[in-house]
Amino acid sequence: MSAPTVLISSLGLMGGSLAAALTRVGWPVLLHHRRPEVALRGEELGYGKAVSDLAQSLAHADLVVVCTPVSAIAPTIRAMAALHARPVFTDVGSVKGAICADLDDLARSGRFVGSHPMAGSHLQGIDHAQANLYHDCMTILTPLAETPAAPVTLVEKMWRAVGSRLCRFSPADHDRAVAEASHLPHVLAAAAASQLGATAAPLAATGFRDTTRVAGGSIDMWSDILLHNRQAVGSGLVAMREHLAQLARALAAGDETAVRAWLEAGREGRQRFEHHAVMDVPILGEEA
Amino acid sequence: MSAPTVLISSLGLMGGSLAAALTRVGWPVLLHHRRPEVALRGEELGYGKAVSDLAQSLAHADLVVVCTPVSAIAPTIRAMAALHARPVFTDVGSVKGAICADLDDLARSGRFVGSHPMAGSHLQGIDHAQANLYHDCMTILTPLAETPAAPVTLVEKMWRAVGSRLCRFSPADHDRAVAEASHLPHVLAAAAASQLGATAAPLAATGFRDTTRVAGGSIDMWSDILLHNRQAVGSGLVAMREHLAQLARALAAGDETAVRAWLEAGREGRQRFEHHAVMDVPILGEEA
Repeated sequence: MSAPTVLISSLGLMGGSLAAALTRVGWPVLLHHRRPEVALRGEELGYGKAVSDLAQSLAHADLVVVCTPVSAIAPTIRAMAALHARPVFTDVGSVKGAICADLDDLARSGRFVGSHPMAGSHLQGIDHAQANLYHDCMTILTPLAETPAAPVTLVEKMWRAVGSRLCRFSPADHDRAVAEASHLPHVLAAAAASQLGATAAPLAATGFRDTTRVAGGSIDMWSDILLHNRQAVGSGLVAMREHLAQLARALAAGDETAVRAWLEAGREGRQRFEHHAVMDVPILGEEA
Repeated sequence: MSAPTVLISSLGLMGGSLAAALTRVGWPVLLHHRRPEVALRGEELGYGKAVSDLAQSLAHADLVVVCTPVSAIAPTIRAMAALHARPVFTDVGSVKGAICADLDDLARSGRFVGSHPMAGSHLQGIDHAQANLYHDCMTILTPLAETPAAPVTLVEKMWRAVGSRLCRFSPADHDRAVAEASHLPHVLAAAAASQLGATAAPLAATGFRDTTRVAGGSIDMWSDILLHNRQAVGSGLVAMREHLAQLARALAAGDETAVRAWLEAGREGRQRFEHHAVMDVPILGEEA
């Protein structure tokens, strides 16, 4: 039984690393990029074969992984799916609700299965591709209840081949969970950073350093993520504003019991994180 | 010219470390604690001489450093200052406005100069004292405009003897600056941690880990700090709630320009922090 052929479209860090990882384990990889020279660079690096005729290549691909920025994923898959009926499509987008809604018909028919590998780097571009980027990372799949089993199994097989661990969420649950685990913490880190004035800056130490580290991240990437997950992030912001108002009221009243309870809620959240250390995540069985 | 005699009251990590540091550079140190056995333990560790008669010891001290929790600092200094007219008093409290207001008459007459050494450890108690705890840390002094020069110079001399760098702020400016550099980031880290649900916990990764690290800190210490700096923290919370509302409005409107500008404000705050790396802080001249 030969390995499936994977066409990777858009060869930045994520796509390039996936190509490098799949090539290393012997899977046939086809490389596609808006600018053909990037696909040729991938071929030069030994990450697969550059695509010259997209429609013809789609006819040979079992699986297409679209690695564009979030806003381009659904239109790219829609356009490619119309070119040929054969391949299954997946993606690496960090929000899922809007994409799965846009591609609802393709998800129901089994032509699309959403993926979100929780991996990344501050480095960008195919020249920084890392064949081990997905090793031990958690990848969340978001098939619909109606999605047939075979395409889901194919997508799982690919992620497992590059060393990823797997779990499944509904698109809406995924977006709420990543809002809590990643998007809201990013927003609060940026808020904490923004309020540091020039007078106070020399006094900021290790606490500030760690709390605001992610605020130095890519504006392009994060505006894209926040806008695409605006519903879950928006709900979270409403809850956060009320949570901060609670602390303000407790401080104004000098209510030590309430201030302690408020801080305790943060400590409990931190404990939920520490409890679910990397070793404890739910992993789909290897036999699946 | 012999070194000044320093009486250190309350021998936890901060007081114990100061005693260890001063003893190491040859300053005479008197050790005082609510429970006499703690002062005896300090003497046993070689950090100075345990005080048996407090009034008599105050008559021999040039400088008293009160290292109690924030809420006990002003009453302790008030009570000791009434016992003997000789020593100058300082403290290690991380908020200054309320303490300096409570001790306003003593600050004006030169008997009290507020200090805030920005050092600490998650370890507590005299048995974890570190003689290098204050080495290279930033200590903020908060003399009033009316405070005579001699007691300020004495307090500066002590902090410089243990290796600390020095700067001066008014008590109100200090409290606003530490709110921005430390207290509000702590609050936002705790808020980010609190909203992580059990479902999302397995998805939290390095971003969440760093953003929420400080939320695991001492509830005792942080409720004390936030309550004593309630005015500056309260103002900061009002501003933060409005700042988060701005993002919520930008997301609801799908306004990419506004979302980018909002994220950019966080990035600029982070850059103000990185620019003021430890090497760049304003340091009072060694000749002072």
